[in-house]
Amino acid sequence: MAGKISPSMMCVDFRRLEESVKALEQAGVEYLHFDVMDGHFVPNFTLGPDFIRCVREMTSIPFDFHLMVERPETVLSVFDIRAGDIVSVHQEASIHLQRTLQHIRDMGAKPSVALNPATPIYAIDEVLDDLELVLVMTVNPGFAGQKLVPSTIRKIAGLKERLKANGHPEVEIEVDGNVSWDNAVKMRQAGADLFVAGTSSVFRKGEDIQMLIERFRACIA
Amino acid sequence: MAGKISPSMMCVDFRRLEESVKALEQAGVEYLHFDVMDGHFVPNFTLGPDFIRCVREMTSIPFDFHLMVERPETVLSVFDIRAGDIVSVHQEASIHLQRTLQHIRDMGAKPSVALNPATPIYAIDEVLDDLELVLVMTVNPGFAGQKLVPSTIRKIAGLKERLKANGHPEVEIEVDGNVSWDNAVKMRQAGADLFVAGTSSVFRKGEDIQMLIERFRACIA
Amino acid sequence: MAGKISPSMMCVDFRRLEESVKALEQAGVEYLHFDVMDGHFVPNFTLGPDFIRCVREMTSIPFDFHLMVERPETVLSVFDIRAGDIVSVHQEASIHLQRTLQHIRDMGAKPSVALNPATPIYAIDEVLDDLELVLVMTVNPGFAGQKLVPSTIRKIAGLKERLKANGHPEVEIEVDGNVSWDNAVKMRQAGADLFVAGTSSVFRKGEDIQMLIERFRACIA
Amino acid sequence: MAGKISPSMMCVDFRRLEESVKALEQAGVEYLHFDVMDGHFVPNFTLGPDFIRCVREMTSIPFDFHLMVERPETVLSVFDIRAGDIVSVHQEASIHLQRTLQHIRDMGAKPSVALNPATPIYAIDEVLDDLELVLVMTVNPGFAGQKLVPSTIRKIAGLKERLKANGHPEVEIEVDGNVSWDNAVKMRQAGADLFVAGTSSVFRKGEDIQMLIERFRACIA
Amino acid sequence: MAGKISPSMMCVDFRRLEESVKALEQAGVEYLHFDVMDGHFVPNFTLGPDFIRCVREMTSIPFDFHLMVERPETVLSVFDIRAGDIVSVHQEASIHLQRTLQHIRDMGAKPSVALNPATPIYAIDEVLDDLELVLVMTVNPGFAGQKLVPSTIRKIAGLKERLKANGHPEVEIEVDGNVSWDNAVKMRQAGADLFVAGTSSVFRKGEDIQMLIERFRACIA
Amino acid sequence: MAGKISPSMMCVDFRRLEESVKALEQAGVEYLHFDVMDGHFVPNFTLGPDFIRCVREMTSIPFDFHLMVERPETVLSVFDIRAGDIVSVHQEASIHLQRTLQHIRDMGAKPSVALNPATPIYAIDEVLDDLELVLVMTVNPGFAGQKLVPSTIRKIAGLKERLKANGHPEVEIEVDGNVSWDNAVKMRQAGADLFVAGTSSVFRKGEDIQMLIERFRACIA
Repeated sequence: MAGKISPSMMCVDFRRLEESVKALEQAGVEYLHFDVMDGHFVPNFTLGPDFIRCVREMTSIPFDFHLMVERPETVLSVFDIRAGDIVSVHQEASIHLQRTLQHIRDMGAKPSVALNPATPIYAIDEVLDDLELVLVMTVNPGFAGQKLVPSTIRKIAGLKERLKANGHPEVEIEVDGNVSWDNAVKMRQAGADLFVAGTSSVFRKGEDIQMLIERFRACIA
Repeated sequence: MAGKISPSMMCVDFRRLEESVKALEQAGVEYLHFDVMDGHFVPNFTLGPDFIRCVREMTSIPFDFHLMVERPETVLSVFDIRAGDIVSVHQEASIHLQRTLQHIRDMGAKPSVALNPATPIYAIDEVLDDLELVLVMTVNPGFAGQKLVPSTIRKIAGLKERLKANGHPEVEIEVDGNVSWDNAVKMRQAGADLFVAGTSSVFRKGEDIQMLIERFRACIA
Repeated sequence: MAGKISPSMMCVDFRRLEESVKALEQAGVEYLHFDVMDGHFVPNFTLGPDFIRCVREMTSIPFDFHLMVERPETVLSVFDIRAGDIVSVHQEASIHLQRTLQHIRDMGAKPSVALNPATPIYAIDEVLDDLELVLVMTVNPGFAGQKLVPSTIRKIAGLKERLKANGHPEVEIEVDGNVSWDNAVKMRQAGADLFVAGTSSVFRKGEDIQMLIERFRACIA
Repeated sequence: MAGKISPSMMCVDFRRLEESVKALEQAGVEYLHFDVMDGHFVPNFTLGPDFIRCVREMTSIPFDFHLMVERPETVLSVFDIRAGDIVSVHQEASIHLQRTLQHIRDMGAKPSVALNPATPIYAIDEVLDDLELVLVMTVNPGFAGQKLVPSTIRKIAGLKERLKANGHPEVEIEVDGNVSWDNAVKMRQAGADLFVAGTSSVFRKGEDIQMLIERFRACIA
Repeated sequence: MAGKISPSMMCVDFRRLEESVKALEQAGVEYLHFDVMDGHFVPNFTLGPDFIRCVREMTSIPFDFHLMVERPETVLSVFDIRAGDIVSVHQEASIHLQRTLQHIRDMGAKPSVALNPATPIYAIDEVLDDLELVLVMTVNPGFAGQKLVPSTIRKIAGLKERLKANGHPEVEIEVDGNVSWDNAVKMRQAGADLFVAGTSSVFRKGEDIQMLIERFRACIA
Repeated sequence: MAGKISPSMMCVDFRRLEESVKALEQAGVEYLHFDVMDGHFVPNFTLGPDFIRCVREMTSIPFDFHLMVERPETVLSVFDIRAGDIVSVHQEASIHLQRTLQHIRDMGAKPSVALNPATPIYAIDEVLDDLELVLVMTVNPGFAGQKLVPSTIRKIAGLKERLKANGHPEVEIEVDGNVSWDNAVKMRQAGADLFVAGTSSVFRKGEDIQMLIERFRACIA
């Protein structure tokens, strides 16, 4: 199956929001990625439920929530999560991770666990039944425009293998962080299925989004 | 001096962001109000530095940052704060409030303390020298569209008096929360100087922003 | 109006729970007091919602919840709170105190703020409209069997005056902590309305609860 | 060796406390299980040291403390822990887990680590020397009456094997969460040694505790 | 009564520790001031119990502990506190302030409350009976070498008056932060009794400590 | 390669600071070890940046910082860290461990991760590329003078193997906690490279530091 794309809305040109969303829709992206930050789990802030709700009115592309927040279980209810959306919570941020994932599934969405670069893949061994995706952070979360942590390419491959070995080949791997043209190729080879695309690939000042998406698709074919 | 207006950008129609900002500029609003939430001090999220930076490129209206975050001193640096901006931090959120206010002043901005409805006005007696404004919350922070806490009107008047009695008549009072046409009149009479205007006054679906601002100005003349 | 009694269920003989509740009912106590502790706001634990629900099935005496927990707004929903109950939250524990009190009122219960011995009475000036009672702690919360903090008697009197001066003579004063026969008399004289009675008055090994309540009533007449 | 039973006192009929404890004693249960919750590690509250002390006066059955609290090392001293008791602290809640376990042993009790459903069994590899039991949560802690997390059955078996492989076959496995008749059989087959029995087995309204215990024993023989 | 001196040991030349302590002793300083920081209440670290214990062996000057730590009640036991010492805890850091002060008194030491520059003097109205001193911070705590917050001079005078008005003229005022020759004079005039002396007065590279103390005494006579 | 020594400055005789540092220099120790504690990650306090800076002026021995603090990334900047120094942060204390290690490397220092006795060695599998050392705690951190946790000897050996198996034989192992003559021998055999030496070996009242270092060297040859 071909790789899928989830453009990061934190990188969109907010002045051309609707136009950009339409272009992404026509380019056939599979998800729109929304970063939520709490200033504590990560030292930054981004988008909130009102902004996300506004984008929902523009498109029927499913949403891909990335909650970079401590104790994500306490804030799920402020978001308008729908069937078919992905919701990623961090392994490092949730004490009762299985309950949180089950809660996401009960809302009709696809549960996903995000892993910081330093977090070992063993950490999710006991929740594989509860997951549809694993989000492998390829930079430390919190900021756009960072450099790839090189060891994470090997981590993707190791995770792919472990998922198979543990009887869960259907769990998909999402990657987020410096997913440039070149890095996307390596991540694809290592086993990534869904790619969060930002300023290093599909959002480039003055360039056409549809063309960029097309070029990106070629990298992850 | 006439009342001033700070429209809440959390209530803007994000699809018409640039158009709305231009309309606010032409209507002559004094500030643009940006709410920042951390999911901990308040159980919600809104806007982050990237969005705010994008608006900065559209206009020269000074910005009015309202940081609804725990330990605001640790996150000041992620924002592009400029001379002439207002930065409000919560009295309830900062252990070293005087240092934080001094830090804001050192950045060239106007230091302001925000007070939750339950917080007594005495709480800021020792930082009056360090302030240019006090932001009186007239609802509990965290959500748009809430009902006014009635006792806060009396609180505005009490604060006005106390500022004078303590030798600081120049410190301005900003109000935020259900600042509707009717409530704005009462707040103005009680002594408010700067009004955060949201969905109950200047952002109304299908209505003209400039007309709404004009009407609002009449309420706070 | 005569003083009212709220026996502390943390001091009941758990072996004679139903029998004791019946005796308290026959003695005509106005409330049953339930202490809830979180091991963080106070370094101890007591009773939880299951125990409290069990007592509810035994009696129609209204309940008096004393939540000695950080961020009480996050746990209100685990309790079966009913119309006519009192719910006290600590001023020191709630950042959005007015919202929490309003929430309690919306549940049909009587909102109350608890004050630690060190907390000044000014701290609640802005929430008097939202209160039906103030719970003055006369010991530091967390443990039964402590000695009275002497200055709290003066504090009760000061609060009584301030409530009147601020136009809220109807707000009642509840007292909790070493409410012995002797101390109850002093507290009553200072202005207390509702008395949390524990091991130093109405729960004494081998003595008859109804007799003890009667004697206690005499102290607070 | 036959399976052992630890009835959860959070599920007892508090109106028949002494009678129930006597019945449990006659039925020969090996432990009484006490849940302690702090409203932070889990969003609920249950029992505290006074209640537990009261039960101690009724029986000589050893106690089985399950501390669902953050930083359990700071609250051990409020409980009356005795030689022969079990004390379980959560792996997810204690930064200095080895010290906490050693502290429990120094009090004469049996140190145990509790694992949330999502926590991998590798997490305790370095404290096997310090343990007498591992408490495998088969639901997410915090509430009675939840449904079994199915993958935890496999986890019990995996843990049993790992304990043997690491030279610690003597470490016992306790299970807690929806331990019904049917689930108990599966858990026993997977390797569980001690069973926390609640509303789905030994505490059923109107049914005789001794009969229920007998039936439960058959399931875990 | 003449002003008293408490040299800040955080400013001592650690290479000449014993020699410096001897000089301070001969100069007749009343206390030695030890700053303790936790990296959370203030973003810095200084001295710990081992260092302080080592100084105790060199001198019989009473010690003056300034605990710039969150929840100071949890760490009192790690320090070797003796009769006649002062122990200051921050009003902003202790939820159960009265209990903490009582605990300090029970250890035989003099209880003191420290106030950050932004903290109003009303905040301690209910603990005046429990205090022997109030430590007025004249800079924000956490670092040596900061500039005076000018409004704190007025705060000292206001506190002096309020102590008298509330029947506690015996409570002494300690000042800490940029206590230079000039500032010490103003602080003395405003009512300060005990002066924490650091790099801006009694610890100056290459100058004689006894001479500097003498000169300082003249300022606060 | 022979074992290296990092004497713990928390155990030095502060009265003979300069003399002791000179003796350590002459004895040729490879590092000076500085413990920093925050009263939260560990319940104690020790040394701060001013003290450490003072020692820097006495010697050119590289420094070995052991940060026993929560969220170490927020306090790195208060220390004067230099090229060639080691900086250890705890795996249990840092959510974004890879970023913190990278930050340390960017400062020119050697990044190291410290592991509490209970922490499994798998926990650092994903950061081996980012490390120059692993600090294996052989007691629970926070206090000098504790007894060795016996299982940590086996842990050192297991770590040595895993480092090799994972392609990182160059990562060194540092050990800290009850590194006595006897224990040092065992630790060396298990694979330790750098030894934090304290009161159980090189700092003994009345004994000559250089002789003690020499004897220690023999143990770890």
